[in-house]
Amino acid sequence: MLKVGLLGAGRIGRVHAINIAGHARSELAAVADINASAAEELAGLYGAKAGSLDDILADDTINAVLVATSTDTHSDLIEKATAAGKAVLCEKPVDLSLERAKLCLERTSGNGQPVMIGFNRRFDPNFAAVKAASLAGEIGKAELLSITSFDPAPPPVSYVKVSGGLFRDMMIHDFDMANFIMGDLPTSVHAVGSSIVNPEIGAAGDVDTAVVTLRYADGRIAVIKNSRRAAYGYDQRLELLGSEGLLSANNVMMNTVSKSTNAGVVSAKPEFFFLERYMRAYVAEWDAFVAAVLDGANIPVTLADGVAALALAEAATQSAKTGETVEVSL
Amino acid sequence: MLKVGLLGAGRIGRVHAINIAGHARSELAAVADINASAAEELAGLYGAKAGSLDDILADDTINAVLVATSTDTHSDLIEKATAAGKAVLCEKPVDLSLERAKLCLERTSGNGQPVMIGFNRRFDPNFAAVKAASLAGEIGKAELLSITSFDPAPPPVSYVKVSGGLFRDMMIHDFDMANFIMGDLPTSVHAVGSSIVNPEIGAAGDVDTAVVTLRYADGRIAVIKNSRRAAYGYDQRLELLGSEGLLSANNVMMNTVSKSTNAGVVSAKPEFFFLERYMRAYVAEWDAFVAAVLDGANIPVTLADGVAALALAEAATQSAKTGETVEVSL
Amino acid sequence: MLKVGLLGAGRIGRVHAINIAGHARSELAAVADINASAAEELAGLYGAKAGSLDDILADDTINAVLVATSTDTHSDLIEKATAAGKAVLCEKPVDLSLERAKLCLERTSGNGQPVMIGFNRRFDPNFAAVKAASLAGEIGKAELLSITSFDPAPPPVSYVKVSGGLFRDMMIHDFDMANFIMGDLPTSVHAVGSSIVNPEIGAAGDVDTAVVTLRYADGRIAVIKNSRRAAYGYDQRLELLGSEGLLSANNVMMNTVSKSTNAGVVSAKPEFFFLERYMRAYVAEWDAFVAAVLDGANIPVTLADGVAALALAEAATQSAKTGETVEVSL
Amino acid sequence: MLKVGLLGAGRIGRVHAINIAGHARSELAAVADINASAAEELAGLYGAKAGSLDDILADDTINAVLVATSTDTHSDLIEKATAAGKAVLCEKPVDLSLERAKLCLERTSGNGQPVMIGFNRRFDPNFAAVKAASLAGEIGKAELLSITSFDPAPPPVSYVKVSGGLFRDMMIHDFDMANFIMGDLPTSVHAVGSSIVNPEIGAAGDVDTAVVTLRYADGRIAVIKNSRRAAYGYDQRLELLGSEGLLSANNVMMNTVSKSTNAGVVSAKPEFFFLERYMRAYVAEWDAFVAAVLDGANIPVTLADGVAALALAEAATQSAKTGETVEVSL
Repeated sequence: MLKVGLLGAGRIGRVHAINIAGHARSELAAVADINASAAEELAGLYGAKAGSLDDILADDTINAVLVATSTDTHSDLIEKATAAGKAVLCEKPVDLSLERAKLCLERTSGNGQPVMIGFNRRFDPNFAAVKAASLAGEIGKAELLSITSFDPAPPPVSYVKVSGGLFRDMMIHDFDMANFIMGDLPTSVHAVGSSIVNPEIGAAGDVDTAVVTLRYADGRIAVIKNSRRAAYGYDQRLELLGSEGLLSANNVMMNTVSKSTNAGVVSAKPEFFFLERYMRAYVAEWDAFVAAVLDGANIPVTLADGVAALALAEAATQSAKTGETVEVSL
Repeated sequence: MLKVGLLGAGRIGRVHAINIAGHARSELAAVADINASAAEELAGLYGAKAGSLDDILADDTINAVLVATSTDTHSDLIEKATAAGKAVLCEKPVDLSLERAKLCLERTSGNGQPVMIGFNRRFDPNFAAVKAASLAGEIGKAELLSITSFDPAPPPVSYVKVSGGLFRDMMIHDFDMANFIMGDLPTSVHAVGSSIVNPEIGAAGDVDTAVVTLRYADGRIAVIKNSRRAAYGYDQRLELLGSEGLLSANNVMMNTVSKSTNAGVVSAKPEFFFLERYMRAYVAEWDAFVAAVLDGANIPVTLADGVAALALAEAATQSAKTGETVEVSL
Repeated sequence: MLKVGLLGAGRIGRVHAINIAGHARSELAAVADINASAAEELAGLYGAKAGSLDDILADDTINAVLVATSTDTHSDLIEKATAAGKAVLCEKPVDLSLERAKLCLERTSGNGQPVMIGFNRRFDPNFAAVKAASLAGEIGKAELLSITSFDPAPPPVSYVKVSGGLFRDMMIHDFDMANFIMGDLPTSVHAVGSSIVNPEIGAAGDVDTAVVTLRYADGRIAVIKNSRRAAYGYDQRLELLGSEGLLSANNVMMNTVSKSTNAGVVSAKPEFFFLERYMRAYVAEWDAFVAAVLDGANIPVTLADGVAALALAEAATQSAKTGETVEVSL
Repeated sequence: MLKVGLLGAGRIGRVHAINIAGHARSELAAVADINASAAEELAGLYGAKAGSLDDILADDTINAVLVATSTDTHSDLIEKATAAGKAVLCEKPVDLSLERAKLCLERTSGNGQPVMIGFNRRFDPNFAAVKAASLAGEIGKAELLSITSFDPAPPPVSYVKVSGGLFRDMMIHDFDMANFIMGDLPTSVHAVGSSIVNPEIGAAGDVDTAVVTLRYADGRIAVIKNSRRAAYGYDQRLELLGSEGLLSANNVMMNTVSKSTNAGVVSAKPEFFFLERYMRAYVAEWDAFVAAVLDGANIPVTLADGVAALALAEAATQSAKTGETVEVSL
């Protein structure tokens, strides 16, 4: 049984709490949050203790921590928790600073504790099926990947200002998806971005609409499209063209009902946002972490994967500013 | 908190156990089964007691029982449990004998205990959306309902022999769906059946493929197609034609991935069978029962609904034998 | 080159005129209609002569006639034209009277002239693909056929009164489709019908909504659903369940565009009515007739096929009146 | 009646010949080709004369010419034909040299003869519906356009060598589509290209897989994906994200049949290549040209549009070589 300390009792922390408590081989032991009453309330729902970070790190009965705090604390918490002998599942991104993330990787690489980064989309059954089919050679050799990733609505400008920007905050998921599907890092990155959804986002120095092109050493190409707003909901698709065909992962719709009237054929919208769309992915992600810690199974998303995605985000941020193609290396 | 005694620890009992234990307002208190070790094993998973039927009925801390035993025990258990002051959620069908089911309804109608029948498909979000859209007048006045309901593979002939036949065992779900969607009982039933999937099913006196036509007093028509075998999985769809349009509830597919190659465009099959397809429906069904018992909410599928579906099954069984149209009344 | 006399310059006659004139191996030589000016106008568009029926039958340079006149003249014209040495393509149905149609078949069966009946849907590329896949064994042995066939809007009641009724006028296409796909005549027919779309249709002695069940000697079953009104357009689909899978032919949509907004995902309606939906089928039908006459290719829809469909229509008409299952034999 | 001289009797010339001859208001008067026997054969099919270019230009009864010769002759023929008083429909591209195309535009702009460029995809009913819906404001303000355009198989390397390269030969259609949908020229172009389908294409100095990003003055973005090979056929789609939704034009499939078996659900592939997919578009294109010449209707694709698409192709060619973003102006 994996006894888990949850760091962070916000929206994403609560999603993880359900999965930790519902898993046959894990239990939620303790919850910490800078807002003590939030920690207490969440802990109460699952019969866990509320406590401080130090309490959790000092508690030898706790095997693992789940880091769901604000991004600026991630690197520190990964280092402290692994130093305290805990396995770690940390929400993305590792950090807003590539340098700091690399340092975190360096500092923790020798200590033997499993560290997994929460790129939950790798566990989406649809994207995972694309990866599996590609690996199995079902479309021959991969050549051209296209990722569409639109949020239903832009976040508040106050959030945008501290987010690290669209490439580090939002597209980082898609960079990881490209790394996952292509199984390699690109050698160069080109980005075009606009603030067309909300000019205040532009005034805050960020973009809300962007297209990034990745080129790989062997000539493969990937393109990622992001928008902060899709009026119809969360749009999460990808397509992989190979020498023998195309794999497409389409949206998960709210239901399978269609209505045909004089006005046309109307069907359901995509699941609204990440909690609905990736509900099954979060469950599978937690299951993979439990297996990694308890059974020594492979860590499916490593800290190095987190650093790699951040490197692409940093390159894209630079390219969008200069208009130039940016070389990538790690 | 609803404390629940589960009667029957077989496949469907285990599905209910997960939902009872996972619901925020219910807990699995006790499990009984004629196979005592099955009861003990299932009870153990959820920290419940294993006990006899009598233990459960005598336990005043238990508010409700879920009846998931063999069909021939349903009427008796509904009567005993309600007499013991328990609310009841009973798996379908109420009975194989319409006469016995009517007696059960008569005997329990005065005792004030909620009795709900497990027609889980009413809680499928797709079929429920059709019902809601129809009630809201989105396609005008309903005229013609068509239900497609194919199992992935026929049951063993040994099961067929004790099942009460396809109409009482399998199509009863679709009769209830017709009653649910149309909001009324038909006045006549015509059935055509064949044993074409497996001749041994015919030798056992049953059919494995059938089409039933229902006619309503106001001229509306419904048609139900059943087959015991669909090589591609569980096929569960319906269409409702109205004066202003058509509502279609389509299958839930295993994933959203398609593969386009020289051989065509291949997409995923439907979810395999009822446990996969109706997983969300079982959760919603249990939630509705909890609300009915704890909050006095409406019972969405009454014992009378169970009797009505059985009346259609009996009429269809007779029509398939004689070739004649059978009048229905309750 | 096939020189063709067109009998009937109405809506369907004009469709055929385009295809006759556009085919590389046929030309429109003459047009006759009881409305002489309609014949002249249509003939003028294609450089053909307008003339009387007798002119056309007497003209030895004309090899074939296309009969697109009112149904009550079909049998007479088939007999006269074949007696005059012409090949005949006659619109459906052969006649409203089964007895008369059988007599026509008897009278013309020895004269050696090709007679083809215009069941155009056999030439629809979608339904033809289902037939081909079924023949090729792609879904194993066929077991259960389901045909959905809804018109966009009911015809005027004045037409209904002379139409011979829904089963002879509209469902006859679907009876022929069942005969085509199943490759056999059913042994019994059961029909349920209502006048629910327009009560005046009922007052005229007809139905506007109907479900017919066909049973075959080997246990296969087919079900046909008809409605005179589908608010979203012409709904023409079929599904064939076999021992190893399901074949589905879906509607042809107006375009491939979808619009996703907050209100849902809206896509195009089906092609509006038979001229749009079956445009390609009419071209293929004419091509098959040309090949039958000029090259001695098989006649893909014979006069006997026309009689068979009419026999089912007559049985269904009787069943809808009596509620009884009607045996079929030819 | 429009009397038409066809210049070029190759594959695309023959497509146009069918439409010219089949249109109610045009006729094929003459055909010229450097291969005289090809001209004679094609002319013979439609009762036209075969003749030289000079014959056609000198024939005052001929109102219009359709230029379907090799690209290097287009500018000269547009100039000569307009000087001879003919209206011109010229296949794309105008020229491989942007400079020469601009000169052609300059030389012909004052002579009053209609000149239309054969960007047939603007007439595809699906793409045209997207344009119409966007203009009607159905998705609010357009923000992000994505065009997918894959050929079924690469052309011979011998063709690649004289084609002007993928951007001028293949993607030029997509540049025009972007101009059509966005209603404006972009201000900058960035291209990434690879020779991954066939290394011999790379050896010949061209690419076979490319992604181009276009940025507009108002911040809108478009991205175009091209591959010379899609094993499943011709893939022609586009998506336009706007402030209130998404418009998607999907592929036209060979038929509407799906087959569900244990192996999955298989449906038809896209129409194979441009002749099949754009058959209706070629008809509509010719109809628009006839209306422009005979009725003075707007020319829907002008010579200036042809020059604009070529300017983007030239910019993309340069960007793919240098990796730099290229500014565009006309």
